[in-house]
Amino acid sequence: MSNKVGEQTIIFKNKPKIIGNFSVVGEKEGHGPFKDYFHHILEDDLFGESSFEHAERKMLEYAISSSIEKAKLNINKIDLIVGGDLLNQIISTSFTARHFDRPFLGIYGACSTMAESLAVGATFVDGEYFKNVVCATGTHFSTAERQYRFPLELGNQRPPTSQWTVTGAGSSVLSLNSNGHSITYATLGKVTDYGINDVNNMGAAMAPSAMSTLISHFQDTKTTPDDYDLIVTGDLGKLGSEILMDLMEHNGYKLGKNYNDCGQMIFNNNQKTFQGGSGCGCSASVLNSYILKKMDEGVFKKVLFAATGALLSTLSTQQGDTIPGICHAVVIERDERVGRK
Amino acid sequence: MSNKVGEQTIIFKNKPKIIGNFSVVGEKEGHGPFKDYFHHILEDDLFGESSFEHAERKMLEYAISSSIEKAKLNINKIDLIVGGDLLNQIISTSFTARHFDRPFLGIYGACSTMAESLAVGATFVDGEYFKNVVCATGTHFSTAERQYRFPLELGNQRPPTSQWTVTGAGSSVLSLNSNGHSITYATLGKVTDYGINDVNNMGAAMAPSAMSTLISHFQDTKTTPDDYDLIVTGDLGKLGSEILMDLMEHNGYKLGKNYNDCGQMIFNNNQKTFQGGSGCGCSASVLNSYILKKMDEGVFKKVLFAATGALLSTLSTQQGDTIPGICHAVVIERDERVGRK
Repeated sequence: MSNKVGEQTIIFKNKPKIIGNFSVVGEKEGHGPFKDYFHHILEDDLFGESSFEHAERKMLEYAISSSIEKAKLNINKIDLIVGGDLLNQIISTSFTARHFDRPFLGIYGACSTMAESLAVGATFVDGEYFKNVVCATGTHFSTAERQYRFPLELGNQRPPTSQWTVTGAGSSVLSLNSNGHSITYATLGKVTDYGINDVNNMGAAMAPSAMSTLISHFQDTKTTPDDYDLIVTGDLGKLGSEILMDLMEHNGYKLGKNYNDCGQMIFNNNQKTFQGGSGCGCSASVLNSYILKKMDEGVFKKVLFAATGALLSTLSTQQGDTIPGICHAVVIERDERVGRK
Repeated sequence: MSNKVGEQTIIFKNKPKIIGNFSVVGEKEGHGPFKDYFHHILEDDLFGESSFEHAERKMLEYAISSSIEKAKLNINKIDLIVGGDLLNQIISTSFTARHFDRPFLGIYGACSTMAESLAVGATFVDGEYFKNVVCATGTHFSTAERQYRFPLELGNQRPPTSQWTVTGAGSSVLSLNSNGHSITYATLGKVTDYGINDVNNMGAAMAPSAMSTLISHFQDTKTTPDDYDLIVTGDLGKLGSEILMDLMEHNGYKLGKNYNDCGQMIFNNNQKTFQGGSGCGCSASVLNSYILKKMDEGVFKKVLFAATGALLSTLSTQQGDTIPGICHAVVIERDERVGRK
């Protein structure tokens, strides 16, 4: 197999480029540390729609069409849209795809969806099956909260281990033979389950899957954590990130100052989100704003983007099942031609 | 783009082979026309488990592991499992993947999932990213019914346009450089919406997506319906199939005796399923039993397998949205070396 590296990793020899990217987030996220990096911040979370679900779709649609604009492409030049979301039957992405009239692949990896879509999209581009592929995902606090937890009107208390689903969407356009940072590797994750069954402690449920994928990635590519300017997990949150660092250290990998977590980064400590952000919109919006911008500026040259997902449903929880997790990772390498003055 | 054909179709020049396949179905399906083709028929729909959801997982697990056995491979030789299902957050496939400890890509295409998994799996194999990829999906009447419609205990009446969710799972193992029928093309579908909002008339909601993908496929590959021994849609059912034939004829394509529909075929008329079968387990179990067996026998040499999905959720319906549909298609060509005595 000429494009397989080690056990779980594939190499993209044609180096698909990210030629356009866009992020849109809610008002609360717009008050966080990345307020100057997001492309668009909503003034109200309904985005002018009649329901939060419709607002979620509109964010996704806005992120996708704006990323295509940034790529200086017409929608007719897009060969494929790859995406998914957290709502049952991924209706946000499916309904959004309806408006674009382009081939669509629905995927589901819970909060690992941004990395999964980049891995799948990069494969189609690298193998020269399709030229221009859009990878997108998003979430909305108010749709996730009422689907997974309680009616918003109840105003339930949140336990200290909980995270706050990010209202946000991100979209990246991949293409060959252009300028842009490259996707060079993807490590596809295994479903892991360490027996966590507390739905308010997602970080703990997902940390083992991040460990599994990161270790496989380092082994497969014969790299170490020091080879990356940034290793960033999807949304383990503060507690989950600490668990991951402990798990990695037990396995001989020290994650140092170059490690961070999108869930941990996206809110300020005074924003009362407890462990930080979550939801596929979290890593999608952080990647498509702050991370890619810092790559433009040359601050990050090689990034390991490892988005994590908790593969539960309300039904699996009600039936007493534990919470399996998954983590997919992609390597993004800087295009030295970008951002040079 | 060397592997793109027309607008929506990709060609697999390395011709990934189906080297193992397996189908498992429920008792009712085991009394239908394909009873002698299914590999395993359950004696009871709980499959020895405590809930229908756990039975659905067990069917999938059984189909996947048996297809790997049929491919004469050890689980460690499997590089990737691609699959999804109808339950919220595709828990059946995710929980199943947990047991195999192999990289997993979760996808969601409603009842188009079998074709979507084959299209994605074939891309990874054809591009030499991974050698052996499992593509699988399944559904269970009792889990789908209570998730999408009513509690089973209510014993609700079913309208005459309704279909019966198939209890069944199917799995195919794809690989390069072996004997087996080949996946030669995939046409990835667009999300279409003709404004149908009757959740008990899925065939009508999905027929336009089948039309869209079939016409694109014929145009992209410069073929006509006559070039295929079998053109088979996923699960439009009887009414949906008639609508599709009408729609195609209006567009200048006559679907003749070589056209059929998995939903229409899987039950006998006296089994009171009204329009026939549905659910991703429907086309998955028919493909991985009857269709591939008839290819072994040389009855079908070139099959266009076009699975259709209705992309709704209970919430989208409750919020008054219409039902978008999608259809993904793959071409399967006979390996003349298989089944020769």
